[in-house]
Amino acid sequence: MKEKDFINTIKKLLNSKYIGDDCAYLKDLGIVITQDSLVEDVHFSREFASAYQIGYKAVMVNISDVLASGAEPAYLTISLSLPNEIENNFIKDFYKGAQAASNGAEIVGGDITGAEKIYISVTAIGKTTGRKISSRSQAKIGQKIIVSDIHGSSAAGLQKLLSGKKTLDKFTRAHLLPTSQIEFSQKIAQNIKEDYAMMDTSDGLMDALMQIANSSNVLLSIDFEKIPYDNEIKQFENWEDLILYGGEDYKLVATVPDECTYDFTVIGEVKSGRGVEINYSDKQILYTQKDIENKLYNHFKEKS
Amino acid sequence: MKEKDFINTIKKLLNSKYIGDDCAYLKDLGIVITQDSLVEDVHFSREFASAYQIGYKAVMVNISDVLASGAEPAYLTISLSLPNEIENNFIKDFYKGAQAASNGAEIVGGDITGAEKIYISVTAIGKTTGRKISSRSQAKIGQKIIVSDIHGSSAAGLQKLLSGKKTLDKFTRAHLLPTSQIEFSQKIAQNIKEDYAMMDTSDGLMDALMQIANSSNVLLSIDFEKIPYDNEIKQFENWEDLILYGGEDYKLVATVPDECTYDFTVIGEVKSGRGVEINYSDKQILYTQKDIENKLYNHFKEKS
Repeated sequence: MKEKDFINTIKKLLNSKYIGDDCAYLKDLGIVITQDSLVEDVHFSREFASAYQIGYKAVMVNISDVLASGAEPAYLTISLSLPNEIENNFIKDFYKGAQAASNGAEIVGGDITGAEKIYISVTAIGKTTGRKISSRSQAKIGQKIIVSDIHGSSAAGLQKLLSGKKTLDKFTRAHLLPTSQIEFSQKIAQNIKEDYAMMDTSDGLMDALMQIANSSNVLLSIDFEKIPYDNEIKQFENWEDLILYGGEDYKLVATVPDECTYDFTVIGEVKSGRGVEINYSDKQILYTQKDIENKLYNHFKEKS
Repeated sequence: MKEKDFINTIKKLLNSKYIGDDCAYLKDLGIVITQDSLVEDVHFSREFASAYQIGYKAVMVNISDVLASGAEPAYLTISLSLPNEIENNFIKDFYKGAQAASNGAEIVGGDITGAEKIYISVTAIGKTTGRKISSRSQAKIGQKIIVSDIHGSSAAGLQKLLSGKKTLDKFTRAHLLPTSQIEFSQKIAQNIKEDYAMMDTSDGLMDALMQIANSSNVLLSIDFEKIPYDNEIKQFENWEDLILYGGEDYKLVATVPDECTYDFTVIGEVKSGRGVEINYSDKQILYTQKDIENKLYNHFKEKS
């Protein structure tokens, strides 16, 4: 499926100022809203993930978008479509996982219907009171680029799962039960005075950086050695790719003024130009949108 | 699938005051929210419905819930999961249909992913400013029962489609392109002073009446001859059942005080007791919840 073509078609058709960020910011209501779906055997497999983990992740994917906007998670609705053979216990465990990922948001509605495979669609609403809301188009030259946590562990965990290692270690856990970045989001959004960009790394750190660079028409210059990661990721042959391109970590990356970096990790700076520049100790590589698309993991190609 | 068991499990688990009506009323935000999904070959078939009609209905199902709450349709998000072979034109026509059913609500987000069958989940938000919001538990003895339009045409249309008649006449149109009841909703919600019940007839008039009766702990006494319907429905052998039990008309039924019946059709009155009583010229039948469940059409059994 040509997902990007479809999205462009929809954007043209709707001609809406709201389409662009992961959340739509509805100023008149003081809320942001986002809706994302997970489809069985496209985004998850019952072979690898328990009902609890599926419920957890379906909600966290959406909570992560709310946190990336800077808003406070407030309400959730969940639509579940389930095959006939599913047990009542699946529902219980699914909702326990969903609640565990809710970050203070209350589940207030949704529906449940039949289907051949499991489909989950979650809508999350965040409150914007007392927060400055981000947009990927608001990175400004001179701002520092900060991240909330380590990168690459989720994709490393997925590799382990796909190779048959189903035990819950720190990598598979990072994939199945990604942690919330609520403190980072809250600290930035409650204190920052100027416009800023913030995104989650749902499709990988590099993808988030490139989206910000393109939407803001700037160059993001990154020092590779400053990107935080788990040292044991080096056991994976492709560890540098996992860190840059691995998806589903659901960490946050933001461009903020000097006084708003707090104790978070600064990995680079916003400069004039276009694209993402990765600085290594011995080389410097400039990436364009096309380079990133070619680098995307098969996992994400399957998604699109 | 035991949909009702599942819903009860979820209700118990969440223990939320919001679960009960089709929309959750979020007073702190001044909005109602609802999310409902349509699954291919469960709720619709590409054999009978065009992309435009599928998009129209997916949105109308949700707008109808907003109208049943009394709120003003404001925003929509749409999650679409599509098989690989779908053409770009499908998306265009789908969104044209979605916009045609939006009743003034703006489509502000959602996502698009791959799947084996078409899966659509729509979230609708309504504004509550200047409106009194309904609840199915608020019918009061002495209130009149009014309806917004004719009943049974959608189920009659479905019978025609299932028997191979694919031309768009008034019955098949009622099924594929149900009309909005926005004027009825607005007039009631903007003028009524006391608490009231209002529901849409998504699962049939009798189902809506029974839900209100059970939630409000009252008896709804209906005069069958006062229920409006298209006279040509009498060409169907089971026309009385179509009117009472046929689903997907998406009309509104409300319990209101005398001064709020306006020029709408009064079909009965709220009385003390429990259940729904249908008065015919020569007989009177009292229905309980169990009677209704046994009467549900196969179409709705397939959905659950």
